[in-house]
Amino acid sequence: MKTFLLFLCLMPGLAWQNARAQDSSASVFCVVPLGVKGGSDESNLSAYLVSAQGSRDFICLDAGTLYAGIRRAVENGVFTDSPDAVLKKYIHAYFISHPHLDHVAGLIMNSPEDAGKNIYGLPFCLDILKSTYFTWKGWANFADEGEAPALGKYHYVRMIPGADTEVPGTPLRVTAFPLSHGSPFQSTAFLVNLRGQYLLYLGDTGADRVEKSDNLHRLWMAVAPLVMQKRLKAIFMEVSFPDEQPEKQLFGHLTPRLAMEEMEDLERISGPGTLKGLSLVITHIKPIGGNEIKIKQQLRSQNNHSLQFIFPEQAVALRF
Amino acid sequence: MKTFLLFLCLMPGLAWQNARAQDSSASVFCVVPLGVKGGSDESNLSAYLVSAQGSRDFICLDAGTLYAGIRRAVENGVFTDSPDAVLKKYIHAYFISHPHLDHVAGLIMNSPEDAGKNIYGLPFCLDILKSTYFTWKGWANFADEGEAPALGKYHYVRMIPGADTEVPGTPLRVTAFPLSHGSPFQSTAFLVNLRGQYLLYLGDTGADRVEKSDNLHRLWMAVAPLVMQKRLKAIFMEVSFPDEQPEKQLFGHLTPRLAMEEMEDLERISGPGTLKGLSLVITHIKPIGGNEIKIKQQLRSQNNHSLQFIFPEQAVALRF
Repeated sequence: MKTFLLFLCLMPGLAWQNARAQDSSASVFCVVPLGVKGGSDESNLSAYLVSAQGSRDFICLDAGTLYAGIRRAVENGVFTDSPDAVLKKYIHAYFISHPHLDHVAGLIMNSPEDAGKNIYGLPFCLDILKSTYFTWKGWANFADEGEAPALGKYHYVRMIPGADTEVPGTPLRVTAFPLSHGSPFQSTAFLVNLRGQYLLYLGDTGADRVEKSDNLHRLWMAVAPLVMQKRLKAIFMEVSFPDEQPEKQLFGHLTPRLAMEEMEDLERISGPGTLKGLSLVITHIKPIGGNEIKIKQQLRSQNNHSLQFIFPEQAVALRF
Repeated sequence: MKTFLLFLCLMPGLAWQNARAQDSSASVFCVVPLGVKGGSDESNLSAYLVSAQGSRDFICLDAGTLYAGIRRAVENGVFTDSPDAVLKKYIHAYFISHPHLDHVAGLIMNSPEDAGKNIYGLPFCLDILKSTYFTWKGWANFADEGEAPALGKYHYVRMIPGADTEVPGTPLRVTAFPLSHGSPFQSTAFLVNLRGQYLLYLGDTGADRVEKSDNLHRLWMAVAPLVMQKRLKAIFMEVSFPDEQPEKQLFGHLTPRLAMEEMEDLERISGPGTLKGLSLVITHIKPIGGNEIKIKQQLRSQNNHSLQFIFPEQAVALRF
């Protein structure tokens, strides 16, 4: 039987991880994490579906794990369609922060079964997808540029930093901001706009101080007005390592302390007390040793801004 | 607590999928599938650990999924060490049949946590690992050749077709044979020799007739004497699609009918009745629609040689 969606973004109370401080009836975004970890575990790597609450028209922010996450979301009752239908019909576009394999493997390996759609990213990122993955050496070229024959299922859309783009088939608009991910390597933050309400997703990034960069400071400048106006509903930010990781061995990632340094910088711009209750979704924890427990403890002990930390779980929907 | 192995290759009766016709006390090989599927599901892609029965010194044939399979094997009680220890210490070497992402993603993404070891393959395969994956564009270069800085954790060992190579740290010797995987694309079969007993693993391959190749015929010529002498304990062969898949859309893969055509060819060389009871382990079924059920039915209905079909499961050990 072909079912149509009994979609839990419409069903408060079931299979949800709720933002504590929020009235669910006021939520505007639905997020279904398909993978949340920062490496190693091929079944659970960075990928976040985002839609307007109550809609099945998603974009996918990074695509480390698709199928295994979708299957689990179906098992959890988050989607009642088949995994194949969710892949093909629910995901309208991919936004890739950077081309490391743990952020694109699911996209590449599901391409034979996927439907045609756009892949958005900054030029550096799409150029590497084109020259490295969607070639005939390591896979097949399912995109519309690069090594011949280009099968043309995917269309690359090069984003311009700071300029927003609409996403056909969804009510969402997305703006890209460059990040530094272990200089000279780059990454991207995506600011998702749903009728004037916002969600910010950061791909892998180091802190400005460590990266000797001002990319995050510029990003905070751009979003501070939204924080002041309470229109930024959530920030998804990576915290890959616990504070014990030496700064010289961060490889372009954040620790709890560095994440809080960056929140400090944001609050300097947005004003004292403006971060109170803001949802900070912690992504990309490297699943080694006791990292997860340590990172949670260290974040909670340094929460000087009364942020609301959220630790996403694969296939458990969030709303903001 | 650091545990040493309570390793189920030593423990008949637990967490095993037994070859029916075999006396377990006579088995020489232990195989732990870390992933068995032919695409899409990032949590369960081609990777097979092979050791001498009773030993924890494994080689890994293809490496589509490592961590998720090892974790499940630990959950199943197949290994009692930590996933991290199994990755680092149990796997002595990787043999990669071809560089499609569903056969190498686990190796690439677990490289930061892995210990130093050799990666074996035919030159075409290692050259693509070197130019595509272990670069600084899509990942980091953990190997000892290619884009600088080469971190040197892995050492590429180029195999010569038909010439066997010993694997340090194990009693195994391995010989590579070229396969055709949707001409002009190549793949590899690995013949594993344990003190005169053999196991044959085929990476993705099309049938000679479809590929207009004689690679499989040459492989059957090479192993037919071992079949006649009952020294070939098992063949791992892909059957990606059911018989309904048009031959023009096989993309270098086998169907049940084509797999049986190839077994026919092998028996022509090895002699009538020589395949009776030979274990044929069916790998790489594409998990789309009802493929798995169809392929099993179609193989069983065409089993003219009394082969013993085995359908491997992730993290369930096999012995031969």
